[in-house]
Amino acid sequence: MPPSSVTQRLQPVFDQVNEAIRQRLGSDVSFVSEVSQYILLSGGKRLRPALFVLSARLCGYEAGRELAISPAFEFLHAATLLHDDVVDGADTRRGKKAAHHVYGNPGVILVGDFLLAQSMALGAETGMLAFTETMARAVSRMAEGEVLQLLHARDPGITEADYETVIHRKTGVLIESACYLGAVIADAPEERAEALGRFGRLIGMAFQIIDDTLDYTGTEAEFGKPVGHDLDEGKITLPLIRTLAAARPDHRRELEDLIGRDRRTPEEFARVKELIQLYRGLEQSMARAVEAVAEAKQALAVFPDVQERRDLADLGDYIVTRRK
Amino acid sequence: MPPSSVTQRLQPVFDQVNEAIRQRLGSDVSFVSEVSQYILLSGGKRLRPALFVLSARLCGYEAGRELAISPAFEFLHAATLLHDDVVDGADTRRGKKAAHHVYGNPGVILVGDFLLAQSMALGAETGMLAFTETMARAVSRMAEGEVLQLLHARDPGITEADYETVIHRKTGVLIESACYLGAVIADAPEERAEALGRFGRLIGMAFQIIDDTLDYTGTEAEFGKPVGHDLDEGKITLPLIRTLAAARPDHRRELEDLIGRDRRTPEEFARVKELIQLYRGLEQSMARAVEAVAEAKQALAVFPDVQERRDLADLGDYIVTRRK
Repeated sequence: MPPSSVTQRLQPVFDQVNEAIRQRLGSDVSFVSEVSQYILLSGGKRLRPALFVLSARLCGYEAGRELAISPAFEFLHAATLLHDDVVDGADTRRGKKAAHHVYGNPGVILVGDFLLAQSMALGAETGMLAFTETMARAVSRMAEGEVLQLLHARDPGITEADYETVIHRKTGVLIESACYLGAVIADAPEERAEALGRFGRLIGMAFQIIDDTLDYTGTEAEFGKPVGHDLDEGKITLPLIRTLAAARPDHRRELEDLIGRDRRTPEEFARVKELIQLYRGLEQSMARAVEAVAEAKQALAVFPDVQERRDLADLGDYIVTRRK
Repeated sequence: MPPSSVTQRLQPVFDQVNEAIRQRLGSDVSFVSEVSQYILLSGGKRLRPALFVLSARLCGYEAGRELAISPAFEFLHAATLLHDDVVDGADTRRGKKAAHHVYGNPGVILVGDFLLAQSMALGAETGMLAFTETMARAVSRMAEGEVLQLLHARDPGITEADYETVIHRKTGVLIESACYLGAVIADAPEERAEALGRFGRLIGMAFQIIDDTLDYTGTEAEFGKPVGHDLDEGKITLPLIRTLAAARPDHRRELEDLIGRDRRTPEEFARVKELIQLYRGLEQSMARAVEAVAEAKQALAVFPDVQERRDLADLGDYIVTRRK
């Protein structure tokens, strides 16, 4: 089955997740509801809640609360998007103006806090200590990941290990948590929870690597945010890191100079892309993502070959073939 | 016993809370530790953890974990200070430059998220569902309170009821939660938990009213932040609300005009203070705070007259007599 069809096959799950999100959205302060809706009802992929739901079902969970709890992962994700867009000064998100350009930084920071708290409250509804602990640890790690990213801004000396630490924390940890907690809510044995956590961690890494390649290859219309933006924000991602590592000394110096600037002309950005192309930085990054997804799928080997396992594997494949 | 001596008498508790905070502070990302220390080791009053510790002991808690858990309330408080100072564009905090002027908005927003998560993780360590639920609800309410405050900025039509809703959410809820959860960790009967919650809610209200009067009466050296700053941030607090309610029509119009401006000259601010003085806005506000503390102390009547009850009552009195 071509992986692109997995999102169609799972449409009922996405629809149910969307309904659960709508039911749990809201505050008696209408501004808070409005900003929450702006970020949450603007067409996110719902990857995290869907992974939680599928993981719970793969572990044989039958108590039927996986959909009701699943918005916790989208709320947490939305909270970090709101804060990260303020932190990065992003202009657009999902093809719309970033929320802080519509509602202002102050309101967006506070609604981020609100959604963060709502996600914790939802997690607590499970009555399981591991939920709160894992979610709280995820938030800490995500904040640390974003800080590390800021600290590495415009640093051409960033290593691939540094990059992997950043993307693991900023993206991998939440996807890992969604999968892991699917096993936890189902009271699955630790071996299975660990396997799902590992699966999530690896597809999370692949997801971010693909995001970072799309920033060079996508078009704004497809991607929902401007391309080339990472470099403008000082983010040196895998395509560049691999290129820097492979480049001839003169090309490396040229790239370091282009990266170090606050802004580049369109011609200068084209030259960056040319050098990335020369050293196959995008292909190498894609290969790394594909490799991570293959490893992720191996982690699922502890489970029988049932539909939910195939769905998770196909979502992994979808992640590396997506165009936005 | 004069209430001013309660903070001396409770110094051992504050010292133990400080030690617990130092032990639980920290991240493997040194920037995160540094910003956390900047906000947390700069001489806060430790009121919230101390109230939690005393409440637990008043309820006969003997398992000995109250000090270890108490930093949760200071971390949560610090997280909101970091975010609020960004939201308000505050210049100073506790006599030092506000953190975002030292470390930048992005880092401070993220470290706020980190501390928020750390507080949830600490609360989860109790293994009690009510902890996470109450803390998460507190964070939601606090964010909503700050949003409401923004929405009422420079609004001379703000009513005393609006003001009480704002200060309850932005300040009262966390102090209420600290007292309430002291009873929860001690497995106290609901009646006692409610009584402590009510006590906390009322002294929290008094605390914020006093804060709002100090903004008109204190000196920057005493108060640790510039006076008159609330009005510059558009915050219309009880001294002004009472003055507006009592003022002659011409004085009311004059005040509304002065309040509506983005900035006032020192002479204009002096005129605002003169009108507040004329209508006894500060005295009325102080009286409201004293009344709230008296009510708060009545809520403690369900407890026997033991030292911890007297300590809590004295902390209530301290709140209305403090100068900073």
